[in-house]
Amino acid sequence: MRHDHVQSPARSSGGTRHLPRRWAHAGSAAALRGLNTVTEEDLAHFAQFLPPTSILSTLTPSPSPAEELAPFNNDWMNKYHGKSTTVLKPRTTEEVSKIVKWCSQRRIGIVPQGGNTGLVGGGVPINDELILSLSNMTKVRSFDDVSGILVADAGCILQSLSDYLAPYHHIVPLDLGAKGSCQIGGNVSTNAGGLRLLRYGSLHGSVLGLEVVLPDGTVLDQLTSLRKDNTGYDLKQLFIGAEGTLGVVTGVSILAAPAPQASNNVILALPKFDNVQPLFKEVKRQLSEILSAFEYMDRTVYDLAVKHGQGRALDPQDVEGAECFVLVETSGGKREHDEEASHIPLPDAQKLNTLLETLMEADEPLINTGVLATSPAQFSALWAIREGLTEAVSKEGNAYKYDVSVPLDKFQEVVDKTREHLQQKGLLHADAVKYVVGYGHVGDSNLHLNIVAAAYTPEIEAALEPFVYELVASYKGSISAEHGIGYMKTHALQYSKNPTSIDIMKRIKHLFDPHGIMNPGKVLP
Amino acid sequence: MRHDHVQSPARSSGGTRHLPRRWAHAGSAAALRGLNTVTEEDLAHFAQFLPPTSILSTLTPSPSPAEELAPFNNDWMNKYHGKSTTVLKPRTTEEVSKIVKWCSQRRIGIVPQGGNTGLVGGGVPINDELILSLSNMTKVRSFDDVSGILVADAGCILQSLSDYLAPYHHIVPLDLGAKGSCQIGGNVSTNAGGLRLLRYGSLHGSVLGLEVVLPDGTVLDQLTSLRKDNTGYDLKQLFIGAEGTLGVVTGVSILAAPAPQASNNVILALPKFDNVQPLFKEVKRQLSEILSAFEYMDRTVYDLAVKHGQGRALDPQDVEGAECFVLVETSGGKREHDEEASHIPLPDAQKLNTLLETLMEADEPLINTGVLATSPAQFSALWAIREGLTEAVSKEGNAYKYDVSVPLDKFQEVVDKTREHLQQKGLLHADAVKYVVGYGHVGDSNLHLNIVAAAYTPEIEAALEPFVYELVASYKGSISAEHGIGYMKTHALQYSKNPTSIDIMKRIKHLFDPHGIMNPGKVLP
Repeated sequence: MRHDHVQSPARSSGGTRHLPRRWAHAGSAAALRGLNTVTEEDLAHFAQFLPPTSILSTLTPSPSPAEELAPFNNDWMNKYHGKSTTVLKPRTTEEVSKIVKWCSQRRIGIVPQGGNTGLVGGGVPINDELILSLSNMTKVRSFDDVSGILVADAGCILQSLSDYLAPYHHIVPLDLGAKGSCQIGGNVSTNAGGLRLLRYGSLHGSVLGLEVVLPDGTVLDQLTSLRKDNTGYDLKQLFIGAEGTLGVVTGVSILAAPAPQASNNVILALPKFDNVQPLFKEVKRQLSEILSAFEYMDRTVYDLAVKHGQGRALDPQDVEGAECFVLVETSGGKREHDEEASHIPLPDAQKLNTLLETLMEADEPLINTGVLATSPAQFSALWAIREGLTEAVSKEGNAYKYDVSVPLDKFQEVVDKTREHLQQKGLLHADAVKYVVGYGHVGDSNLHLNIVAAAYTPEIEAALEPFVYELVASYKGSISAEHGIGYMKTHALQYSKNPTSIDIMKRIKHLFDPHGIMNPGKVLP
Repeated sequence: MRHDHVQSPARSSGGTRHLPRRWAHAGSAAALRGLNTVTEEDLAHFAQFLPPTSILSTLTPSPSPAEELAPFNNDWMNKYHGKSTTVLKPRTTEEVSKIVKWCSQRRIGIVPQGGNTGLVGGGVPINDELILSLSNMTKVRSFDDVSGILVADAGCILQSLSDYLAPYHHIVPLDLGAKGSCQIGGNVSTNAGGLRLLRYGSLHGSVLGLEVVLPDGTVLDQLTSLRKDNTGYDLKQLFIGAEGTLGVVTGVSILAAPAPQASNNVILALPKFDNVQPLFKEVKRQLSEILSAFEYMDRTVYDLAVKHGQGRALDPQDVEGAECFVLVETSGGKREHDEEASHIPLPDAQKLNTLLETLMEADEPLINTGVLATSPAQFSALWAIREGLTEAVSKEGNAYKYDVSVPLDKFQEVVDKTREHLQQKGLLHADAVKYVVGYGHVGDSNLHLNIVAAAYTPEIEAALEPFVYELVASYKGSISAEHGIGYMKTHALQYSKNPTSIDIMKRIKHLFDPHGIMNPGKVLP
């Protein structure tokens, strides 16, 4: 899989890279002010309607060892560490409602948790909040293979939904590296982006309905399975990307897409970055609705991938003088038909071939060269380069990773300015920052900026933050294209959101959760 | 154009079809309780920052005749009638902000008005609210033909945006019959559906950012031109479909789509309604991403279209025994390329041809017959049938029109049950209800239910409402698939929204607009 989607900006940090102390402490204290801890009396109450298998706690009467709670208290990067005593795993929406209602009355903080694959500390407790795991809610409630509308419990794992849909020739309009663990409720709550956004759009468009347990325990049923409904405010949108701070998503209605039946790809070497924009235009013009990926890699990161054995798509002499690379993928329907009519080349592959020809034959070619996959093995080999970037980078050193949105024509500028800035600080050398590289989803203006260092150091961190956030803000970009705010970036929210927006966000939060029990300390500073 | 999208459920009523008195009066009184009327002092204030051309008022010092305000006070169907004394036409967001700030302090009701093409009375005053027309805000602020992101003033007319984008080979991801008059701000505020929804999805997915003047005059700038931004609650979503009750949309950032370069269509006759679902599945499977329309017509409405000269796609003997019809359209890119490679048939047309062949040659054919357009003229002729339904219906009598979402497999049932109900009431005969017909967008589960009567009568109306709303609610459907709630359906909101949802809607409204000045009496009962 294309792992960069599930990589944290500090994945390999081993916990060495923290937020400035003042923020971490201020946030933590404020978040939990006025909230109560889970007691044995609370457990006794939960035991009235939950079976023992749904309760995991270090408290009496049946205390579990703390290690058993570790997978829930710590995020998968082992960067954020909660101290919760209790994990509840309800099986139904009604059970979720009862838990939340009790916690609301008792002012106990709740952390809704899906697959715990988040990258910004949004899914684990800051302190000793109760963890409400959705992992026991795994039913597909319905699927209509005519409309393509899937209704599922929030705890369904993304991969299991993909598997469920496969025999119906449909796909979830969402794919990401964590799909083997992440849950659809968590995907919705974090507004996950991922690999299919260029083609299928964001969850704000494809999620048709939600069932949410509000912070007072009320069940908000907006689980419509209608594609169109213009009857008042579209409340469900508020919960998409709210990271569990406005309520617990318990059910999701989503529009599945017909499965594409044929995919092809090509890798292109470009003489200069300035050609990326006109190339993207030309590719969109020629490929239109079958274009499903347009991925950018700068030369440095491409070379790192080759160096670390992630694949070798192009001959070394062919890539001489290439400043950057682009991987183009098409996905279309109806391969059987294409193959039946054997006198006709596969239309999608043919379109890519024509694209390559017209690009090469232009008077002022936008590309130096390109390689078209002609077999499934080659298709995978070309993707291997792009998918191997994260691994290549991690083999080279410790990477500071930023997931930002900036206008496409600024991709290179962001990388260059960051490199220059580090150079000015005297930090660009073999013992400090070795490489500053950029790659990402051109179609989404989503740049993955990686600063590859010999080691994580306070000097480099101080040079990077808030520098990168300020740089991104200067382009009116987003400091979090797809990973969210969670706990990690609450202090940086103002770089992407103006005071009016933050003020309204706070008022919305207060409207839904006046006592601040729902995922406290996340999203809002 | 396909006019049913801009038809009101009571378009030809000549004002004879009103809401039950108790609702109309209760709504009106409550809406305007506590609001002040515009005075000459207010006008003097506005004149300090607005030029005379931006002020149209029956008040001194320069009173205009009331007729000049008629196009703003009355909706285009001449069904809803306001009594506003004053229309303001600001040219900038700053002017909008100043107006709203003043009205907020003075507690003057405001009706934001776009092209005034709405169908549910949402865009005209109930009483004497101030009309804030966006018609002087018509600038395209930016367009990036690489990303496809268009940023425009709210007052830009949809057709003018289409024209603007054409040289860049892009289209607005939205099309509707009113495009010559409707404005993009109004489209967003009403979450307009229209003809391209099957292909490009809803505005909740394609609108990337909004600029909104809030009810206190604050400008909320969420006018991002990023495709991805995961930094907190997606506030702009609240204004999409809020029908101007939460603020005035002044600017829109929207993702334009690459223009399709080739379109084809086919009309299919089906022996029975039960075949529509399997047909839709098969068509989606074969056509996948090039499918751009799948429109349903029952036999009765098809015959009315033929009778009234809206086209004749199929030979009379061919349609014998057909219970309903489907129009399938494909849109794809790259016609030039297809034509250059002249030994290869146009792939999209070929796919439709193959579709038709496989459908006809099946052991148990889903269709009786079908006709494939082989020229642009035939393409238009096939669409003419579908597009002519509204006109055919109106030639036959006075139509009660309902725009509902129900599961696709219930389309026929909704029509049949409505017909049976009218028959039981003794109203199904030549002097009362002549026909009950159904047609609509299968891909969106959006049914246009038309009851064609000799004349509008209180008996028929009483037989239809709340019967139709209750019927739709019994399928968990929507009483307004795309037209909105406006003033017309506030009393019926509870058929599609549960009490929890309505309660939260009210609290959101109060959060943004505590004094209730913004489009009072609309959306919420």
